[in-house]
Amino acid sequence: MKTALIQQRYHGSKEATIARTLEMIAQTDAKLVILQELHQSEYFCQSEETKFFDYAETYKEDITFWQQVSKERQIVLVTSLFEKRTAGIYHNTAYVFDHGEIAGKYRKMHIPDDPGYYEKFYFTPGDMGFEPIDTSVGRLGVLVCWDQWYPEAARIMALKGAQVLIYPTAIGYLACPKERHDELCEKENTPEEKRKMREAWIAVQRGHAVANGVPVLTVNRVGSEKDPSGVLEGIDFWGNSFAFGPQGELLAEGSQENEEIIELELDMQTGEEVRKIWPFLRDRRIESYACLQKRFCDT
Amino acid sequence: MKTALIQQRYHGSKEATIARTLEMIAQTDAKLVILQELHQSEYFCQSEETKFFDYAETYKEDITFWQQVSKERQIVLVTSLFEKRTAGIYHNTAYVFDHGEIAGKYRKMHIPDDPGYYEKFYFTPGDMGFEPIDTSVGRLGVLVCWDQWYPEAARIMALKGAQVLIYPTAIGYLACPKERHDELCEKENTPEEKRKMREAWIAVQRGHAVANGVPVLTVNRVGSEKDPSGVLEGIDFWGNSFAFGPQGELLAEGSQENEEIIELELDMQTGEEVRKIWPFLRDRRIESYACLQKRFCDT
Repeated sequence: MKTALIQQRYHGSKEATIARTLEMIAQTDAKLVILQELHQSEYFCQSEETKFFDYAETYKEDITFWQQVSKERQIVLVTSLFEKRTAGIYHNTAYVFDHGEIAGKYRKMHIPDDPGYYEKFYFTPGDMGFEPIDTSVGRLGVLVCWDQWYPEAARIMALKGAQVLIYPTAIGYLACPKERHDELCEKENTPEEKRKMREAWIAVQRGHAVANGVPVLTVNRVGSEKDPSGVLEGIDFWGNSFAFGPQGELLAEGSQENEEIIELELDMQTGEEVRKIWPFLRDRRIESYACLQKRFCDT
Repeated sequence: MKTALIQQRYHGSKEATIARTLEMIAQTDAKLVILQELHQSEYFCQSEETKFFDYAETYKEDITFWQQVSKERQIVLVTSLFEKRTAGIYHNTAYVFDHGEIAGKYRKMHIPDDPGYYEKFYFTPGDMGFEPIDTSVGRLGVLVCWDQWYPEAARIMALKGAQVLIYPTAIGYLACPKERHDELCEKENTPEEKRKMREAWIAVQRGHAVANGVPVLTVNRVGSEKDPSGVLEGIDFWGNSFAFGPQGELLAEGSQENEEIIELELDMQTGEEVRKIWPFLRDRRIESYACLQKRFCDT
């Protein structure tokens, strides 16, 4: 099944960015199309500013809009929206549309909070758990960005029958101002450190594919975005969207510089064959895993 | 701290193999020395034969022997022995010795059973859980071979304070008899499939390093060993022992053909620094991980 990962820049406004997304969607005949995290806007979590909550005011219209796109294009479409649930409760929510129907949603469970990624200010951690979403192309284990570092999230999706793991994401390097020379900034900006970070990000998700015998599809933002508060310089999103098969074999990979439609053939059945050869799920020692439900097992 | 992974062949007898191990240990001044899985003998699990239980008869002497080696060399030594616990209960057990003292043991928890790797015939699954072993060089998360495919095992060791994950292992390609042409054999023997398998094995463990912010050290057997029953052709162990740092950066790697002492500088503290930058443990959603203690979450 033809699948497309839409790796995009932010184009200065919500309208221009969405226009570009629609243009890219129109260029592929993929049946499953995946957009990046918070694809309607800039990655606004670089600073903590109440004005950005306005983006969530259009949440219901946004749903209707992308639902309509999935109907017109006759596709399964994975989106990433800023959900206003009520005053003071907002979520980072992936919505999946299936030929004009709402297939389901996933509220980001693991929320980061690190320099440049102040998501705990904006997003209440998801309260729907890890539930795959059934669609006409298969059962999708949709997770979001920071979730990608957690083997627990991947495993639970697999144990609930997900046939593929899908991560809309927005991750990059913190840009270091030329006039600043503090140690953290210098350290994070050596080419070696940058490569290490990006490769670690790929490695952990490739690991999820192998451990669970499922493909992994990750769509990342690309391009530079300034910190609107001016405290930090900004983020250089590293693109590099990718797809791994159920043995961790590379299926497709995007560039680190450009907007791209990364197309691949996704086989939802190979995972089952791989699990016959490598039956990891057969031998799990579930009676000895209690520690996994603890913060730290120091007692 | 200098660390050595001893990647070895089987030398036709227990005596010759141990003699070679001692020779290799004597060639390094590493403070932490790690031997491969079941390093005293051939990988006897290629067939199910009761005669191989005889190897476990010397279990207590084996402990004393390696304990003495660790004392003479003044090292921390990770060994992998065939434990006879009583008639009918045997374990695949890693013993750790620290300058002549027994630091602790780990009984392999996840036991495979696949063509060429009939371990369920020989080994009762471990009943001691996942407990790191404290030594003079740090708290070691010792696991064994098949455990390496399980993110749960790695995570639990990390949550119990392990500063490094260590995997003695014995894994390779099933050799395909030239006269046989069945589909499985052919499929598993294309260079592409072989590479895919080996890379998956590396990828999943590299993922453990990243997800947990700990180094991972894996020591694998090398060389070809015939199936003594003659049913299968044998296994070509793929060597390729490796070490990753706590961001999944490659620290050292062995060849796929040769016996080797793979030396590296292991820093037990870098993991703590990495966890400050990437605080994955901070954000785990432990109240939503109950599914991890189930076989499959289909209800």
